[in-house]
Amino acid sequence: MYEWSAEVIAVGNEILTGRTVNTNSAFIAARLTSLGFQVRRVTVVGDEVEEIRECFLEALGRNPKLIISSGGLGPTYDDRTVEGLAAALGRKLVYNQEALNEVTRKYKEKGLELTEERLKMALFPEGATPIPNEAGIAPGVYVEVNNTEILLAPGVPKEMEEVTETFLRSYLKRRPNVFYYEESLTVRGVMESALAPHIKRVVREYGLYIKTHPKGHEINDPYLEVQIAGSSYDKDEITRKVKNVREIISRIAMSLGGKLT
Amino acid sequence: MYEWSAEVIAVGNEILTGRTVNTNSAFIAARLTSLGFQVRRVTVVGDEVEEIRECFLEALGRNPKLIISSGGLGPTYDDRTVEGLAAALGRKLVYNQEALNEVTRKYKEKGLELTEERLKMALFPEGATPIPNEAGIAPGVYVEVNNTEILLAPGVPKEMEEVTETFLRSYLKRRPNVFYYEESLTVRGVMESALAPHIKRVVREYGLYIKTHPKGHEINDPYLEVQIAGSSYDKDEITRKVKNVREIISRIAMSLGGKLT
Repeated sequence: MYEWSAEVIAVGNEILTGRTVNTNSAFIAARLTSLGFQVRRVTVVGDEVEEIRECFLEALGRNPKLIISSGGLGPTYDDRTVEGLAAALGRKLVYNQEALNEVTRKYKEKGLELTEERLKMALFPEGATPIPNEAGIAPGVYVEVNNTEILLAPGVPKEMEEVTETFLRSYLKRRPNVFYYEESLTVRGVMESALAPHIKRVVREYGLYIKTHPKGHEINDPYLEVQIAGSSYDKDEITRKVKNVREIISRIAMSLGGKLT
Repeated sequence: MYEWSAEVIAVGNEILTGRTVNTNSAFIAARLTSLGFQVRRVTVVGDEVEEIRECFLEALGRNPKLIISSGGLGPTYDDRTVEGLAAALGRKLVYNQEALNEVTRKYKEKGLELTEERLKMALFPEGATPIPNEAGIAPGVYVEVNNTEILLAPGVPKEMEEVTETFLRSYLKRRPNVFYYEESLTVRGVMESALAPHIKRVVREYGLYIKTHPKGHEINDPYLEVQIAGSSYDKDEITRKVKNVREIISRIAMSLGGKLT
């Protein structure tokens, strides 16, 4: 199975307090998975430079191809992601001219003053470049370190999506063509624990990702969704393989008394 | 500000692929916050023993008072959380008699066979104890290591909630009485960046947690929720302090042309 690893980071006390559900990371993880990445970790840290610094250092230490974070790029005192990344990389914070032009233009258009808080959104780790944010003010921050590419996206969901998609469009132009394929089936009347040994065997044999998602009560109303997924450089090969394994699991489920729904 | 640190872990490839939004961690984080804990990190890892092991080792290295994980306690080949924790602690996996009785009873009641996959839910790290799970089969796993208490809860949300609440009821009997208090206000017509320097000053002065959550567009339709929170051993003191700061911020927002809504 193809492996192109990625990590997702979310910065924000509102997630650590459970006030906000971390939908940003789910969006980013799903997008990366659909592009053939294996997301190996999602980490949430608070709005403190030292915590953010450690979090990036740990992620970089695991040597992923790509890290995408969301949150902490805005104008307030607790938007510290850029500072945290700069500390992790041992780089100075400098005004990025392109980002400065962008932020200045957006405020000027409205006849608004450029305060220190607003200009802060153009402070980048040295060597980083901005990713345009048409949905808001703060641009995304892109930097490459050794073999890891890093994107910092804003935390407001529509801005995060905008910046992430803009980044991925340019990223995709530069990377090999990996194809991810997934199918699922739903079975009633077979317990997850009854299907488990068979799935274990199929996973060993075919090397695909297979996961059962229990939707009902294990004993009283067993109802499972079985997800089968894989990625490959060869679109036809992975599609054929996933479809084949889906058929095999369907037959096993039926032989155990299950009904496909 | 009182600090009683905690970490939340979610185990499951379905979260890393973005297929499932990590609502379990939000639930646990919110419950812990409401009890006065400071949740310092949320980590999501996949269903691999080595990944789970590393994740627990890293969390233990940050020395929190409490770690609660969800996911990976079921009967399938990819339910590996207990194995990962045992590896992190350097402890053997042994059948826990109480858990074994519980799992056996639940399957026997239905006239079901006890397969290896089903009995696996009673395999615990040596020295761990079960937390009853009335919403499903797999019991929670509780273990204390040095000064950190660890709870492994199942991944199915209603089982996770059941096991977490059962655990917290017993936990609360053993811990000092810390009170968490939070209020918020909503303001229209003041940009986050305009309010930012004032909030910075108030945070410095009062030592509370203050966070602005932008709900509208920064320039065209600024609309903010301001959250003010703190915890203390003294319920009256923290309530008074938060209310006072809420009043101060309301006045600042109005002086900047904002409307409280």
